[in-house]
Amino acid sequence: MTPEEFRRLGHRVVDWVADYRERVASLPVMSRVAPGGIKATLPTSPPVAPEGFEAILADLDRVVVPGLSHWQHPRFFGYFPSNGELSSVLGDYLSTGLGVLGLSWQSSPALTEVEEVVTDWMRQMVGLSQAWSGVISDTASSCTLVALICARERASRFSLARGGLQGEVAPLVVYASAQSHSSVEKAALLAGFGRENLRVIPTDAVRAMDAVALAQAVRDDLAAGRKPCAVVATSGTTTTTAFDPLDAIVAVAAEHGLWLHVDAAMAGSAMILPECRHLWAGVEGADSLVFNPHKWLGAAFDCSLYYVRDPEHLVRVMSTNPSYLQSGVDDRVKNLRDWGVPLGRRFRALKLWCLVREQGVEGLQRRLRRDLENARWLEEQVRREPAWRVLAPVALQTLCLRHEPPGLEGDELDRHTLDWAGRVNASGEAYVTPALLDGRWMVRISIGALLTGREHVAALWETLRRDASAA
Amino acid sequence: MTPEEFRRLGHRVVDWVADYRERVASLPVMSRVAPGGIKATLPTSPPVAPEGFEAILADLDRVVVPGLSHWQHPRFFGYFPSNGELSSVLGDYLSTGLGVLGLSWQSSPALTEVEEVVTDWMRQMVGLSQAWSGVISDTASSCTLVALICARERASRFSLARGGLQGEVAPLVVYASAQSHSSVEKAALLAGFGRENLRVIPTDAVRAMDAVALAQAVRDDLAAGRKPCAVVATSGTTTTTAFDPLDAIVAVAAEHGLWLHVDAAMAGSAMILPECRHLWAGVEGADSLVFNPHKWLGAAFDCSLYYVRDPEHLVRVMSTNPSYLQSGVDDRVKNLRDWGVPLGRRFRALKLWCLVREQGVEGLQRRLRRDLENARWLEEQVRREPAWRVLAPVALQTLCLRHEPPGLEGDELDRHTLDWAGRVNASGEAYVTPALLDGRWMVRISIGALLTGREHVAALWETLRRDASAA
Repeated sequence: MTPEEFRRLGHRVVDWVADYRERVASLPVMSRVAPGGIKATLPTSPPVAPEGFEAILADLDRVVVPGLSHWQHPRFFGYFPSNGELSSVLGDYLSTGLGVLGLSWQSSPALTEVEEVVTDWMRQMVGLSQAWSGVISDTASSCTLVALICARERASRFSLARGGLQGEVAPLVVYASAQSHSSVEKAALLAGFGRENLRVIPTDAVRAMDAVALAQAVRDDLAAGRKPCAVVATSGTTTTTAFDPLDAIVAVAAEHGLWLHVDAAMAGSAMILPECRHLWAGVEGADSLVFNPHKWLGAAFDCSLYYVRDPEHLVRVMSTNPSYLQSGVDDRVKNLRDWGVPLGRRFRALKLWCLVREQGVEGLQRRLRRDLENARWLEEQVRREPAWRVLAPVALQTLCLRHEPPGLEGDELDRHTLDWAGRVNASGEAYVTPALLDGRWMVRISIGALLTGREHVAALWETLRRDASAA
Repeated sequence: MTPEEFRRLGHRVVDWVADYRERVASLPVMSRVAPGGIKATLPTSPPVAPEGFEAILADLDRVVVPGLSHWQHPRFFGYFPSNGELSSVLGDYLSTGLGVLGLSWQSSPALTEVEEVVTDWMRQMVGLSQAWSGVISDTASSCTLVALICARERASRFSLARGGLQGEVAPLVVYASAQSHSSVEKAALLAGFGRENLRVIPTDAVRAMDAVALAQAVRDDLAAGRKPCAVVATSGTTTTTAFDPLDAIVAVAAEHGLWLHVDAAMAGSAMILPECRHLWAGVEGADSLVFNPHKWLGAAFDCSLYYVRDPEHLVRVMSTNPSYLQSGVDDRVKNLRDWGVPLGRRFRALKLWCLVREQGVEGLQRRLRRDLENARWLEEQVRREPAWRVLAPVALQTLCLRHEPPGLEGDELDRHTLDWAGRVNASGEAYVTPALLDGRWMVRISIGALLTGREHVAALWETLRRDASAA
């Protein structure tokens, strides 16, 4: 495709996206296609001869859009907000259009240096001290894997340079709460610790990690000849937005030399609001931290930030230095390939740069405060209704709800919950996430899509009541 | 940013990118900024109030472009071609604009199903049998890490469900050639095998793995009570595009139950040309394979393909299934979060879909054949000049060269090589990569940027001769 064709078709693509964002509220939030429904409409073999780009544009409306659940929809209350603010979208367009790669500083210096600058902006925005250095990654899953591998190498005094985990005598142990995200367990297993060496620490009444139980588990492992290695604390759990008590966990970690990784994937964005920072008090005592501007904050996916206090350790674990990647300035620059798993690197900093500059810190704060207020408003409505329950404290913008008609409990109540949540999602009017809490189904309402105003939350509340009473 | 503002500014961004692609040939290929030069021009704190997007656009020309090495430049001969074909760029624009996520099939069915379809198209395009299933990942580094973890779990009979690598008695061993990519060593170390359990197998005269030496190394490890686990073979090494003898390696792997992972990151694209497929004869005997359409083929970075023959094993190693990600159709769909490390997933299939449809298989084949011919032409020119040497067979589009003036050898020759390569890169007229070969510096010329025609290769040859004689 020539630049001139790109100019013409690019305008059409931009218009198509602008139209999509304008009309997204009119689409059913959750896709209604059946499994295999999209595949069945597509050719099973690739085209030998070129097709015109027009054919692709036509397929967007015919094939793709009906097969999407619309994350940018104002009545998307599922999972978490994954906001692609349009200023950030343009930043990503610039990155893809430039098509430059950061294999090393020299392979495109601006890619590395803008990333250094914006990750430091973000550090300041969430109130972290200058002791932290950041890097952009794809997802929290990847960052947590990196964190646990770094913990493993610190505790084993760089076993990777010897026999690896295979050479360790006392098994290394990882701790996380029962409410930690599935990516924590996945990271521990992929890093080779083994499920037997992953301790699931119980939580307290608000589902935050019980630091006393953590300390006891560490002592038990020490007594059994095992080697406590790392603890993953969550600032804002997926299910109920619980905040593990970082101060108390820091104390345990410090006493026993544990690596402390903080998973603030969702709630990290809230820390641009000074009034929320008490929720992660103690965070300065951690070794590593992940939060995802591609969630509530509005950076186009994927844009996950990984912060560490000891970048030299990170680089020592992750670095490779083959001759074909060396340059004469390597002693004076950051080579970000040594800050994570992938070698190749997009210019992802542009989408964060555009977001923060175009919105301003104030603009981002205003939007997040709007969402917090909407969550409080919905909580009030729900608490007023006798058959409805708010099941967990509403720390930020996520509510855990259940409709509990008199006389309904146990499996019957579960069926009722899944039924009405299913009706809500099938209606296309809103998208909510059923999840298990203490072994019973409930519904998570995650508020904070870009377009979600009070009227959409009010409409959701109407839909919830209607579909819960329709049984 | 409203959709209307996005429409207006998006057109400007598209125009800016079109202009950039039109004028890229007039820019110095390698950035000339000094370390810290970009950072020094940027504010150290984030803007409190919103800036207009115009300010960002102005900074592109003022700050960003001078800080880039231009991978889309017709005289970019460094590293490898990382082509962002403009049709693929538009596919990525659609993905980012839609802002949908693939946490599960249900969270946007089309995202999963288009990915299933295009990875199968790509399978057919490179001539792999129906026994392979593919998934899109970010980079080959990530895919090779996944491959070695899957190998580890097969050899250890799912040690992750027990004590992990820490519970293994006989250490697991990984084999790769001395010419394998740095990501292989990195993956083995991150997966916990340890450097002592990574065998570097010597290579033959054309720098392909010596399969006899591999067999011997496996036998030695068995005799010493260790457990051979995996071998990584390279189809197209980074330095000289050597092809490890897959047929012979498959035989060793089969005899000893080794997992065979094939790293065809760069050369995989060549397999859309039937005349190149003899180079990876035997590939059907492998367990896993990575190749990167974001290199020569033209998919906008990042787009790496990971193929496996036993997807059930992959899913068993990678899967997590928390309640908040479950849906009623999970037994009938693919949940691609279980095919790799990250949970979140962009709609990356769109950029591959757009590339293949807009170019057609024939269009892609024609461009790759053009590059192969240009490489052969340059090889002929070099071989005609007495003081120049082609140091390795030119299997595809990469040449390894040295200028060897009479009387110059050893460290003096190294200095000469690095000097003239430095002059070439500093001239801004071309970008080439110095690399070590058999302990001595040489220069890699990787042909295959989208815009690179014969005239650019001819101009490169003039620049090389001029700068090598300028000492």
